[in-house]
Amino acid sequence: MKVSIIGATGYTGAELLRILSNHSEVQIEVITSERQNTEDIRNIYPHLNALYKDIEPLKSIEDFREIAQRSDAVFIALPHGHSMKVVQKILAVNPKIKIIDLGADYRLKSKQTYKEWYKTDHLDPETDAAYGLTELNRKEVQSKNIIANPGCYTTASILALTPLVKNKFIDNKTIIVDAKSGATGAGRTLSLGNHFGEVFENFKAYGVASHRHTPEIEQEISKFADEEIIINFTPHLVPMNRGILSVCYANLAEGIDYKKVTEAFESEYGNEFFIRLLGEKAYPATKNVRGSNFCDIAWHIDSRTNRVIVLSAIDNLVKGASGQAVQNLNATFGLDERLGLTTAPLYP
Amino acid sequence: MKVSIIGATGYTGAELLRILSNHSEVQIEVITSERQNTEDIRNIYPHLNALYKDIEPLKSIEDFREIAQRSDAVFIALPHGHSMKVVQKILAVNPKIKIIDLGADYRLKSKQTYKEWYKTDHLDPETDAAYGLTELNRKEVQSKNIIANPGCYTTASILALTPLVKNKFIDNKTIIVDAKSGATGAGRTLSLGNHFGEVFENFKAYGVASHRHTPEIEQEISKFADEEIIINFTPHLVPMNRGILSVCYANLAEGIDYKKVTEAFESEYGNEFFIRLLGEKAYPATKNVRGSNFCDIAWHIDSRTNRVIVLSAIDNLVKGASGQAVQNLNATFGLDERLGLTTAPLYP
Amino acid sequence: MKVSIIGATGYTGAELLRILSNHSEVQIEVITSERQNTEDIRNIYPHLNALYKDIEPLKSIEDFREIAQRSDAVFIALPHGHSMKVVQKILAVNPKIKIIDLGADYRLKSKQTYKEWYKTDHLDPETDAAYGLTELNRKEVQSKNIIANPGCYTTASILALTPLVKNKFIDNKTIIVDAKSGATGAGRTLSLGNHFGEVFENFKAYGVASHRHTPEIEQEISKFADEEIIINFTPHLVPMNRGILSVCYANLAEGIDYKKVTEAFESEYGNEFFIRLLGEKAYPATKNVRGSNFCDIAWHIDSRTNRVIVLSAIDNLVKGASGQAVQNLNATFGLDERLGLTTAPLYP
Amino acid sequence: MKVSIIGATGYTGAELLRILSNHSEVQIEVITSERQNTEDIRNIYPHLNALYKDIEPLKSIEDFREIAQRSDAVFIALPHGHSMKVVQKILAVNPKIKIIDLGADYRLKSKQTYKEWYKTDHLDPETDAAYGLTELNRKEVQSKNIIANPGCYTTASILALTPLVKNKFIDNKTIIVDAKSGATGAGRTLSLGNHFGEVFENFKAYGVASHRHTPEIEQEISKFADEEIIINFTPHLVPMNRGILSVCYANLAEGIDYKKVTEAFESEYGNEFFIRLLGEKAYPATKNVRGSNFCDIAWHIDSRTNRVIVLSAIDNLVKGASGQAVQNLNATFGLDERLGLTTAPLYP
Repeated sequence: MKVSIIGATGYTGAELLRILSNHSEVQIEVITSERQNTEDIRNIYPHLNALYKDIEPLKSIEDFREIAQRSDAVFIALPHGHSMKVVQKILAVNPKIKIIDLGADYRLKSKQTYKEWYKTDHLDPETDAAYGLTELNRKEVQSKNIIANPGCYTTASILALTPLVKNKFIDNKTIIVDAKSGATGAGRTLSLGNHFGEVFENFKAYGVASHRHTPEIEQEISKFADEEIIINFTPHLVPMNRGILSVCYANLAEGIDYKKVTEAFESEYGNEFFIRLLGEKAYPATKNVRGSNFCDIAWHIDSRTNRVIVLSAIDNLVKGASGQAVQNLNATFGLDERLGLTTAPLYP
Repeated sequence: MKVSIIGATGYTGAELLRILSNHSEVQIEVITSERQNTEDIRNIYPHLNALYKDIEPLKSIEDFREIAQRSDAVFIALPHGHSMKVVQKILAVNPKIKIIDLGADYRLKSKQTYKEWYKTDHLDPETDAAYGLTELNRKEVQSKNIIANPGCYTTASILALTPLVKNKFIDNKTIIVDAKSGATGAGRTLSLGNHFGEVFENFKAYGVASHRHTPEIEQEISKFADEEIIINFTPHLVPMNRGILSVCYANLAEGIDYKKVTEAFESEYGNEFFIRLLGEKAYPATKNVRGSNFCDIAWHIDSRTNRVIVLSAIDNLVKGASGQAVQNLNATFGLDERLGLTTAPLYP
Repeated sequence: MKVSIIGATGYTGAELLRILSNHSEVQIEVITSERQNTEDIRNIYPHLNALYKDIEPLKSIEDFREIAQRSDAVFIALPHGHSMKVVQKILAVNPKIKIIDLGADYRLKSKQTYKEWYKTDHLDPETDAAYGLTELNRKEVQSKNIIANPGCYTTASILALTPLVKNKFIDNKTIIVDAKSGATGAGRTLSLGNHFGEVFENFKAYGVASHRHTPEIEQEISKFADEEIIINFTPHLVPMNRGILSVCYANLAEGIDYKKVTEAFESEYGNEFFIRLLGEKAYPATKNVRGSNFCDIAWHIDSRTNRVIVLSAIDNLVKGASGQAVQNLNATFGLDERLGLTTAPLYP
Repeated sequence: MKVSIIGATGYTGAELLRILSNHSEVQIEVITSERQNTEDIRNIYPHLNALYKDIEPLKSIEDFREIAQRSDAVFIALPHGHSMKVVQKILAVNPKIKIIDLGADYRLKSKQTYKEWYKTDHLDPETDAAYGLTELNRKEVQSKNIIANPGCYTTASILALTPLVKNKFIDNKTIIVDAKSGATGAGRTLSLGNHFGEVFENFKAYGVASHRHTPEIEQEISKFADEEIIINFTPHLVPMNRGILSVCYANLAEGIDYKKVTEAFESEYGNEFFIRLLGEKAYPATKNVRGSNFCDIAWHIDSRTNRVIVLSAIDNLVKGASGQAVQNLNATFGLDERLGLTTAPLYP
């Protein structure tokens, strides 16, 4: 498979190159960067040295024609607002190409919702992309040629909530998601918020009641309900690089116990390689999934308050971004979804 | 003031010595350790070198008579279950002595609740200690001679919830506390759970629906309600040493807005030196209070779900333990509560 | 290849399992632990879940007969002093088996030196093992059936110094090695020295002029000199998990310049996949090799003092231990040395 | 004492405010920032909230006249190149004012050396400032009204080397200083080199044979020798915020043993409050001095190579910058040098 990456110098772009260096069926064609084009990516990310024999210097997104012509699939790893400008141009040159967008542009079905949360009009409102949470939308991912790769917080949260919503086990009005992420979630762009002195040995919340992953979670879990679900979502910054722990709270419906909850998770994910069900009263830890495409899930019931608490852990750069993108690449080309993604988590 | 410390070699004991080295009115008399007695504390904690001219070698809790005779006040910094064995013995020797217990033995009014959560009978059930959350129980702290110093999570959580409960601004059945703590909260005792390789670059929850600080929070906030409040409490381990962020969720009562919530916090804490109200939509960060006795508080209202989210940050070893203990010492002796506690937070 | 691991529950044992889960030619037979035998390794190390379909419960070193009978090769990942007790027993049962010892017992040729530094008599003095620094002793590794896997500090230091010593570019009496390691180098055994609260946000040296890797470095570089080389070696503890940076100082011989130094490194390592020569005035970073078997090397000349400074970076658990052990496994069986070791470094 | 700070929003400026908030004799007058003037420093550094009742909004360095008129002393906490432009202007307005420059402009006596290492002409070459390493230049600090506050690496290194050089215990041609610093040493200015994702769980050297603190160390230790001393200096970046460990190597002169080395350190620093001599074979740790003005020193002799290894630890922002600046303020005004600097180190 010939694959290109638009926006290869951010953390998710570099992570795609890290993962694909281990993928037997993929050959890297064009990689781009607006800031650093003509440069060798290995000078920007020395950890990639010796892993790619010959890789071309970085090109620009302006080279989209060449990208479209030379590629069977293209990953777009840009901040929101950029992919919706280039997707149609690429398709015009190569209608058969598969586009996997790691940004937010194609995730929200309602362009009105997109405008509310992203404060900008959608430039490609007609395009209906597959929402690339592979385990829950596999058929769609396999059939469509534009795949909107989910956000990091959303991946962990949707995987944790879906079995409960789908089986009507909870009161959908009581869902609270308290999620925590490592600093790489904010990318490599410089800001005081990512300055070492500010993040290290510090813990804080941000984006309370306003984070853009909120409507994305609501859209996907609402699919399985007879109602529009509205949730509380609170993200936090953990002083580490990789990992998200999503803690989801909800009131249990009448007569739901551990047995039923456990059955719901097992019937939903029992055959999924990348979902590891730790079971009742267990504790996922971000380090157990670090560097891997796994999502570890466990559930607790608080009998004193009749609430269920589901905990899910992922590596935000892998299952939360580039790893799931490669999983989608494999799925959409009918390959074994595990290709390039069987590396064990890096522990400790 | 002549002060002794029973259990001086744990983190909270060492923290008392760190703080008191800067306290103009305190002289250290006896300090104890069962494992390392006869040793010089400065060999165990070299950071204390040069701060204490002459400090006696560590003695044992068996020297409680000498401790009682030589001290105006004694801090007990031991795991739960130990202080209830020695408190009456000390009082028998010196009925005027002030005892500040940093452990859990005297925090819960109901000995039945104590037994349920601590799995052991209470050995001193008749004693009614002051619950030493200074800002909320100042009179009691000043009048009683046994002060139960609050837990770390509980201090942050009770300070965040009290103004809302007291003013009936929330539905008490919907309270969820999602709290995060640095690793020093687990003390200096060796365990795999505190091994560097396991904690570093890792994030996880623990004690879901079972942490012992739960009944303590419920007891203190229920005081201000007409009902027994039961909450969800979830603690997490943050890969850093100091700091707790407590995030409290609750459904707002009819007609409560930012203005009313802000007034409630200002009228409750407006005159408190150690409570810094950051106000609406602000974000407390643990680093801003690190090494200090401050508690930073902010509040958010999610209009989409009509929930209030209160965030509070403390240093678990200071306002969450040894600092508040010194604040209680000052209060109970009628001194300026700030004595020894005006050191600025260590940032960055 | 059927492979067993004696001592599978320490960090190097778990790292072998992490790496081998990605090795196409290896099947795990027996794994042992004295403390936790009969348990499932996946309960001890949940990051390994889903990576091994069927892996037997942990056995004991007492099962050495079964290990010898069922295995083509065995890794011994035990503290020094243990492997020299079992190696001959295993060979007696299966003389053809390949033994790769990650401990120190077979590294030092002089048993007198072993006794001086390890304070115990060597119990298997006649056995002459291959010193498994693959790049420098490949033939020996391929020919012998006992391979002494090098220490972590030694691997980084010997690789940095060998081209200079071999070419007589430096005054061997002026060699100083100042090395820094992440905390996993001390393993998973509990000690105050590895307690999170003590290591985190702390930096210190240890073992000055007394660390056991000193004679190992001296032995290996002396091979290439006409004299017994004695060096200064100073290890440090870095508040992170993985990575060693070795900084080697020496006075340059007459007329040695950048050109000659660079040629020496290129002729020595130019064809080695796992040695990445960053060149003149470059800076290896531990994160660029984290999780991988690479050793990144760069060199600087200080014209003001006529000294050469060589910097080398490795992951102490991979090229410094388990990765190199797998590289030796591949080499001794005539396989591509890269099998199982092509995973990209985990950055960031 | 009325004190102003030019450049109050960098880490060293904020650290001055942290320390001075605890100084009984100091009142803050004017504080400046070119980027953020007119703002309230407490919005930029919330950890300072409640510690300063009334502090004026940030002014600009252009207000030097007002600063000179209103202040008894002024700290300049700017990058090199700036203080030499303003010092004479301030003195012209207030010749009695004490100026303590935390930058590098006035540290090097030879303006030629300044130009070589800082690549710019010195604009105030006639001014002879006191080199403010208080313990070694106390008289000069007390007598002169311009004090050049030493660099962080230099403070730790000079304090470690001086007793050896002064007593001719070492071969001055063999001095190698291998120093390690936390990330705050690079300040708060944004750069990829200080981006959390790049620094965290990473260790590397930088500035080999080219760091600007080299000539500063050489100048100060050469004072005590009959020769120009030239050294090797290698700085490293440790993934933590605060702390420097300086490890100094040198060949011992004939007949120098532990006894003599220990005597030399004790006679030099025995009466210094801020220098804590840990003695022979001890290990300073940066955490034991964190947040304090202490410098912990220990020494080792390697009998195999006849080298002495001296280790010294400081907090780069305190004894390495703002703390020593306050110590110099106290010294130059004839106050107890400990004023404002008796806060215990923050451990753990």
